[in-house]
Amino acid sequence: MKVYFDNAATTQIDPEVSDLMCELLRNQFGNPSSVHRYGRETKALVEQARKQIAGYLNVSPSEIYFTASGTEADNMAIRCSVRDLGVKRIISSAIEHHAVLFTSEEGRDQQNVQLDLVNVQENGYVDMEHLKLLLQSSDKKTLVSLMHANNEIGNLIDLKEVGDLCAEHGVLFHTDTVQTMAHYEFDFEELNVDFAACSAHKFHGPKGVGFLYINKDVKINPMILGGTQERNMRAGTENIYGICALAKAMEISHRDMKEHQDHIQGIKNYMIEKLESLFPDIEYNGDPKGNSLYTVLGVTLPSTDMDEMFIFNLDIAGVAVSGGSACSSGSNIGSHVLNALGKDSKGPSIRFSFGRFNTIEEVDYTINVLKELYKVSV
Amino acid sequence: MKVYFDNAATTQIDPEVSDLMCELLRNQFGNPSSVHRYGRETKALVEQARKQIAGYLNVSPSEIYFTASGTEADNMAIRCSVRDLGVKRIISSAIEHHAVLFTSEEGRDQQNVQLDLVNVQENGYVDMEHLKLLLQSSDKKTLVSLMHANNEIGNLIDLKEVGDLCAEHGVLFHTDTVQTMAHYEFDFEELNVDFAACSAHKFHGPKGVGFLYINKDVKINPMILGGTQERNMRAGTENIYGICALAKAMEISHRDMKEHQDHIQGIKNYMIEKLESLFPDIEYNGDPKGNSLYTVLGVTLPSTDMDEMFIFNLDIAGVAVSGGSACSSGSNIGSHVLNALGKDSKGPSIRFSFGRFNTIEEVDYTINVLKELYKVSV
Repeated sequence: MKVYFDNAATTQIDPEVSDLMCELLRNQFGNPSSVHRYGRETKALVEQARKQIAGYLNVSPSEIYFTASGTEADNMAIRCSVRDLGVKRIISSAIEHHAVLFTSEEGRDQQNVQLDLVNVQENGYVDMEHLKLLLQSSDKKTLVSLMHANNEIGNLIDLKEVGDLCAEHGVLFHTDTVQTMAHYEFDFEELNVDFAACSAHKFHGPKGVGFLYINKDVKINPMILGGTQERNMRAGTENIYGICALAKAMEISHRDMKEHQDHIQGIKNYMIEKLESLFPDIEYNGDPKGNSLYTVLGVTLPSTDMDEMFIFNLDIAGVAVSGGSACSSGSNIGSHVLNALGKDSKGPSIRFSFGRFNTIEEVDYTINVLKELYKVSV
Repeated sequence: MKVYFDNAATTQIDPEVSDLMCELLRNQFGNPSSVHRYGRETKALVEQARKQIAGYLNVSPSEIYFTASGTEADNMAIRCSVRDLGVKRIISSAIEHHAVLFTSEEGRDQQNVQLDLVNVQENGYVDMEHLKLLLQSSDKKTLVSLMHANNEIGNLIDLKEVGDLCAEHGVLFHTDTVQTMAHYEFDFEELNVDFAACSAHKFHGPKGVGFLYINKDVKINPMILGGTQERNMRAGTENIYGICALAKAMEISHRDMKEHQDHIQGIKNYMIEKLESLFPDIEYNGDPKGNSLYTVLGVTLPSTDMDEMFIFNLDIAGVAVSGGSACSSGSNIGSHVLNALGKDSKGPSIRFSFGRFNTIEEVDYTINVLKELYKVSV
């Protein structure tokens, strides 16, 4: 059996999405900036995709700007806020994705922006009281950047609460929604959010495409300069295949969202139950039974004599999981998120992350693999 | 008949390329940063693509950095040179793509970089004597950014000559090779080039992927910040489908390059011959019979009473062409390239641009359409 429990790293492309992409790859190629029929056809496809996406989020199509990744979207929101909106202070947290953290640090190091990190509790929640305190203590033009769900531990923030708080204090709010977009319903008309980042490959779309939602009241200039694409906001010929695929993936997600949520939450709950039977003292990273993204389950398993090799051994046994995020897994420096929680647990840290193509049988298989691994190594 | 003579704007995807992409879209999805088998498989695909591309250019795979577009590659080369290499002066030309011009102007306006534009002759050639003069007149750390072939008029620069000149003066050299990569053989081992930009969709690959060649002697930091992708040089999950498709498109280009060149040059020559029969006083934009990209033919046709609508009328008759570049065609401000040549010709400016899927019959058809249009309107 081959089990893929690494859906927070990336997801397999939905067959409906790949079918659409293949059809477009074979039948459409015009440059949307061309005025002739080839261009007008693909321009219409891009704008239809934008309109469809905007509909799911209850925003205007003109608030959606396609990018090549969630990372690019995060970079754009933060960097352009500093450059164009007079932001002199960023409030973020140590458990943000590096796309946010490193761009915030760039602001601090190169643009003299004050960077304040809000405290994070050991169970992974952002300390809201500390956030309130930070918001009261400065007159500098401020951007808050906090991710909706943490990609390694799954903890959610309350977007409505944080957004309202930001609005009260007159500060900008960017949220990295890469893990949650198309996993929850969003109504950005109701949320006080200025920027939100999306990446298609986190919800069964292709890699290489995402978008940045920019609230219409916020006016920034482009980060990537050149042609007039994206209404002069992001130069470069549009990735028409990726953009249409993103819209299709979002359509599928929204069509069957409740069903997917229930299915995946069921798998996560079953995994928790089985893990607790196997390891009564299991430690969680974050608070998977609390206000937690239903796709993510972070645990620290009992220490073995092969902790370093644990993920490889799972892989050899056919179970694909992550130690932290995929984005940092190549770097061998450990997880900055788990470090930030102040955990010094021994034993292998594992992120199981589930998707709608996973099954209960895959959990049973994984539990059996764990039993085997611990039999030979504990 | 439907004729697509706008291959400098974008090209149709080669069926071999779309077949490969579709196969990958359906069978591979791992995040190359994941350490398990799904990740290792796609990591291997990306690295194989990089190696293959590097082979065609006679460079090291570690000198190829994938991006989402040629525009991003141009931005990265120029912006990071200013930020990381101490560049205080950019020498460019007024006929560069906006991806280069606007990024150079950003350096001028925000980083106090001196921007000097080398003169361009009325026939579209960069004035090499002026370039030499400019290179002699400053001790500031300098970047020269000149495109290999102009996308609107087709004029080529001699990369060897300009590169050697830059090396002599100890200045950096970036070249926008978006129109020429995979259209000519390059040996970057022989050329004194520090940066070169590539976009897959200009040679029958997909939109949304390109790369920046960075000479190994040049050390810059990333423009897009986050994960450790591209050896820490360009964050964001890799567009594995696009990257593999780029390599495949390049493979096809290099496999049959001489044949493609001869075929396309033959079409261009035939078009010139037919146009000159039809319009004995035809004006060229650039020097299409000289040192000119074999895919591009820029002309100014005799003035009609429907110049403004000329491209639309061609389109209605089934012939897709461009007035300038696609990137500027949406903006209705005229071509900055033709303006820079100081031309004040009346009559519609047309860029015919050819690809390997075009035929002689399409030229005949187009000439007949032109005959019809001029019969009713001259």
